Amino acid sequence: MSQQFEHVALIGLGLIASSISHAMRRADMNTRITGYARSSTTRGKARKLGLCDKVYDSLADTVRGADLVVLAVPVGAMGAIAKEIAPFLKEGAVVTDVGSVKRAVIDAVGPSLPKSVHFVPGHPIAGTERSGPDAGFASLFDNRWCLLTPEAGTDKKAITKLRKFWEALGANVDEMEPDHHDLVLMVTSHAPHLIAYTMVGVADDLKRVTDTEVINYSAAGFRDFTRIAASDPTMWRDVFLNNKEASLEILGRFTEELFALQRAIRIGDGDFLFDYFTRTRAVRRSIIEAGQDTDEANFGRGATDTDK
Amino acid sequence: MSQQFEHVALIGLGLIASSISHAMRRADMNTRITGYARSSTTRGKARKLGLCDKVYDSLADTVRGADLVVLAVPVGAMGAIAKEIAPFLKEGAVVTDVGSVKRAVIDAVGPSLPKSVHFVPGHPIAGTERSGPDAGFASLFDNRWCLLTPEAGTDKKAITKLRKFWEALGANVDEMEPDHHDLVLMVTSHAPHLIAYTMVGVADDLKRVTDTEVINYSAAGFRDFTRIAASDPTMWRDVFLNNKEASLEILGRFTEELFALQRAIRIGDGDFLFDYFTRTRAVRRSIIEAGQDTDEANFGRGATDTDK
Repeated sequence: MSQQFEHVALIGLGLIASSISHAMRRADMNTRITGYARSSTTRGKARKLGLCDKVYDSLADTVRGADLVVLAVPVGAMGAIAKEIAPFLKEGAVVTDVGSVKRAVIDAVGPSLPKSVHFVPGHPIAGTERSGPDAGFASLFDNRWCLLTPEAGTDKKAITKLRKFWEALGANVDEMEPDHHDLVLMVTSHAPHLIAYTMVGVADDLKRVTDTEVINYSAAGFRDFTRIAASDPTMWRDVFLNNKEASLEILGRFTEELFALQRAIRIGDGDFLFDYFTRTRAVRRSIIEAGQDTDEANFGRGATDTDK
Repeated sequence: MSQQFEHVALIGLGLIASSISHAMRRADMNTRITGYARSSTTRGKARKLGLCDKVYDSLADTVRGADLVVLAVPVGAMGAIAKEIAPFLKEGAVVTDVGSVKRAVIDAVGPSLPKSVHFVPGHPIAGTERSGPDAGFASLFDNRWCLLTPEAGTDKKAITKLRKFWEALGANVDEMEPDHHDLVLMVTSHAPHLIAYTMVGVADDLKRVTDTEVINYSAAGFRDFTRIAASDPTMWRDVFLNNKEASLEILGRFTEELFALQRAIRIGDGDFLFDYFTRTRAVRRSIIEAGQDTDEANFGRGATDTDK
């Protein structure tokens, strides 16, 4: 196996795949990029942006000859694609994905792939609330973590080669057991998204509070929820449908904690509230020290940044 | 009543009061500023920063002669302060506050004040996760809304004068009925804070997910919750203890919605999830169009902004 991929096929040309393309170009990889998207609009945009050397209308043409195939479609679509590309995969190719859940992807994709390829599931912990081929940018993965969740017995050279690929895109790489991945990400990503969606839904529903009020007075905290709740609906539908067990566990814990705080409000237990609110402050500090967020107040949004 | 305040007394020298001071200086108001803080550390910092013409250790000295007194302390502390300053207030002075809840402040402050002063409760919808005298900056109120909630019969000139004061600090000003204010802010601010605190608490508690994992993989959504959950614990304790009715109502609605989404996950109702997630996207667009948040992806945080 050579040291570097010579031909990368990107299946799905949204935020993640387009960022991979930009980051590959930034890294001066001398690699052929082929791409596929289901929608002709997306393919058209990708061609216009020059994201790939060649954008195909056919999955078979896209993966033919590729030594790395990246599945960058919503989690629920991966199984069908794996089945469709299987006959056309090059012997010895590495197949990976960028899905936000890993167990369901392994179950859906793994059985369809021929034994002659190496399947190394992955998940770059990076993104924005934008989607589509024009949402990508080269620095998306810089200093972010990419988790690989290969099953025991996977070819070590394939794993190492994929690791080096992600490192060249700017990411830090780690390996994790898939079920543990799904629990951790439920906590750091999936549950926060569901909760943000819920809170924005409540605001949108409350007839006694007008839309204008919700919008004008959003700077007090709510606007941060709306950013998260602006993320791609298809992607998130699939995440929750495919990470059911961890969803139900973490939402159960969340509701339990919320009820404890609600009870403290009802009975006027100020000490309980104060202690709870003090403890959570420390977590923020650790995230900033780990270089995973900016230290600037309000994420560095100036009061006037919206006047541009 | 003259057109502009000649002497403003700031009670409590935290994020809001220090930002008022900076914004007054920026507006070239030729106004005397006196200040008071309970803690000697805070008073020392305020003196060093030059936030006031004079920082006093006594409430009486601070308000004596002032034609505007701004109560900028946690909501739970306002009643006691009103009682203490009452005998020293100048006849015809305007007294306001910056508390995040209004009904409880009106009930706690109003009865203690002499009939010879004008009480105009207020709430600038602006802030950051920082607190203390060194957290303030001049542009905090720019293009943000400040809500005034005076009771019927309040002197119109006093209201207008306070309105002009806030406008000079950069804010847009509107009037609102206090109970409605408390409901609106519960939706756009208080509930999102409680929910963020809860989610960070759940993550902090979950022993099967390590602290390092929570921190390293926080970029997927969770880090935004930690910013909100890093806000001042005393302030937020007081908000919830003093806005109990709206808290319980909105948390009840929130839980109801969350259960509906949880049920959809359990039974695999993808259409319900997709429709819900699609609807909330529109709210984000409206907030950006109203100039209440930046349009940049991830609030404009570059992937490398944390490497500074």
